[in-house]
Amino acid sequence: MSAPFHPDEDGALVASATAGFARAHARHVELVEDPLHLLARRRDPRRRVGLVSGGGSGHEPLHAGFLGVGMLDAVAPGQVFASPHNRQVYAASRAAAGPDGVVHVVKNYTGDRINFAIAAERLRLDGIEVRRVLVDDDVATDSEETATGRRGTAATVVVEKLLGAAADRGAGLEELAGLGQAVAAASRSLAVASRAQTAGAGGGPAFELAADELEYGVGIHGERAATTIPRPPRTELLRRMLDDLLAALPPSRDGDGGVLLVVNGLGGTTSLELYSLFDEVTALLGAAGAPVHGSLVGTYVAALDMAGFSLTLTRLEPGWSELWQAPADTPSLTRLPVDDPEVTP
Amino acid sequence: MSAPFHPDEDGALVASATAGFARAHARHVELVEDPLHLLARRRDPRRRVGLVSGGGSGHEPLHAGFLGVGMLDAVAPGQVFASPHNRQVYAASRAAAGPDGVVHVVKNYTGDRINFAIAAERLRLDGIEVRRVLVDDDVATDSEETATGRRGTAATVVVEKLLGAAADRGAGLEELAGLGQAVAAASRSLAVASRAQTAGAGGGPAFELAADELEYGVGIHGERAATTIPRPPRTELLRRMLDDLLAALPPSRDGDGGVLLVVNGLGGTTSLELYSLFDEVTALLGAAGAPVHGSLVGTYVAALDMAGFSLTLTRLEPGWSELWQAPADTPSLTRLPVDDPEVTP
Repeated sequence: MSAPFHPDEDGALVASATAGFARAHARHVELVEDPLHLLARRRDPRRRVGLVSGGGSGHEPLHAGFLGVGMLDAVAPGQVFASPHNRQVYAASRAAAGPDGVVHVVKNYTGDRINFAIAAERLRLDGIEVRRVLVDDDVATDSEETATGRRGTAATVVVEKLLGAAADRGAGLEELAGLGQAVAAASRSLAVASRAQTAGAGGGPAFELAADELEYGVGIHGERAATTIPRPPRTELLRRMLDDLLAALPPSRDGDGGVLLVVNGLGGTTSLELYSLFDEVTALLGAAGAPVHGSLVGTYVAALDMAGFSLTLTRLEPGWSELWQAPADTPSLTRLPVDDPEVTP
Repeated sequence: MSAPFHPDEDGALVASATAGFARAHARHVELVEDPLHLLARRRDPRRRVGLVSGGGSGHEPLHAGFLGVGMLDAVAPGQVFASPHNRQVYAASRAAAGPDGVVHVVKNYTGDRINFAIAAERLRLDGIEVRRVLVDDDVATDSEETATGRRGTAATVVVEKLLGAAADRGAGLEELAGLGQAVAAASRSLAVASRAQTAGAGGGPAFELAADELEYGVGIHGERAATTIPRPPRTELLRRMLDDLLAALPPSRDGDGGVLLVVNGLGGTTSLELYSLFDEVTALLGAAGAPVHGSLVGTYVAALDMAGFSLTLTRLEPGWSELWQAPADTPSLTRLPVDDPEVTP
């Protein structure tokens, strides 16, 4: 993979970007170069379990943008679209473990599963308890014919936010693992693209689409979808996506049917467009009996510079809204306490 | 202008994006639909002057992303790449005026200058004091032959941050206008692109570049540069840009030569690439005797989905670093107070 403004040497992109990120966010983040990982500088003193994630680069701000109070304690970044080495996950987890152990938040890709599993095995040999939360939200890959299961995409941000808030309230290892898996199970995503990410020395798109085509169900590494569709009018497209998502979403156990909504840009889609989509999607969900109780709009889980967006829905259970709104202080997601005595309303 | 996921009707994009933005950031922002403007919901009680900005859409998060405590009080968004109407600026300013009046932060484009000037005239007739801070940082347009002067680009964020902090300390109208103009005068930017923004029904780029070409000195509305250059190795490109910027930057009056650095994506450039650029630019600036004392890295002033980036340098004067670090609570720029008793280091 190569693009206009990369460093000239192979492999230098992730190393220099990680160093630049740590430098720019020195208040939040500490860099460890070998094996490469990033640590949050601060944590809530009530936290008993370290939260660790990681995966291939190219999806920023996932995961390093969510290091800090209220979210993650450590992150292991791989090369672009490649799993981190298990040595990185192990070192990140050793450094971040709390007295009750570590939870690994893992997107469902084979390489990530393997490397996090090897690291977990080593951590257990060291006497550190580990639980894994596997995020597998992408309905485009929801088929009984694939042994690998659904891919993990933007629901990861929801899982990391809710788990972080619960960890800051002192939740234990089993409670966190159970919550994380419940949030993942209650979440579904779907992505469409109008232009693939830039790839190759020539700087062209990784795959070709005609101007009037959309890739419906694209993956965050540029995996082609099962279907390339003629571009429908926007409202028709959104209705189709929401129909597919709501049909796949498990019913609420104890909630009122409300959802969290993430309108996520894949890297090359403007903020203007994402907020406009959010406006219409919110209205459509309200009409469908799934009112939006919390949201994120922006580029949170990118596929490099792909032009497109994904929608993620999480069906809320009691208490999850409070976790969603809880304070967070990370480079890419901040929630201040709502009552700030310094400032008048 | 048209792109894949826009609403089907002309003109609906900005209206729905603004409505979506206000809905997503209801804690920070209040929407007024006619004439269209956005107001910050909260302000520091010490603030005596309202800070108002605005301009064409397509540059998000500028300006609405900076509404809130520590930055702007009101914003008037125009259509894509088009100035807001003076009625919008007038209404935004009326609503945001403090007891000492209003400061307008205006990027140097003819339409913006005219519409803010008409609004200022009307405000003065109402008895509201107005001062204008004109931001004109783009060295690509620094020529004695153009009567319009340098274009205003990403230094606007620096001006809005420093003015917001000063306003929160109770600075008066003349002090703020003087500070804003001094910050603008101490700031220069330069932008390069490898692919123009998407335009036209076909979804192609607004202008053509070969795979081995860069537009050196591109504008944030896709204005072509004076020079299209063969793509140099990255370090050579960065040295050339910094040479041009440092040559144009006024010397420090009382500072130590240190700078604020904004590495700004133009919309279609990945976070990975921006942080990697930041890492190298910071090192080059240190070697050039212009150490970086504060920074922003990300998409802050976009040109829709243009692939490229800009560098902005502001030569620091005494006290400006403190204003840069001062607390802010806006949708797109947050600074928490550094000492947070809730959390252990």
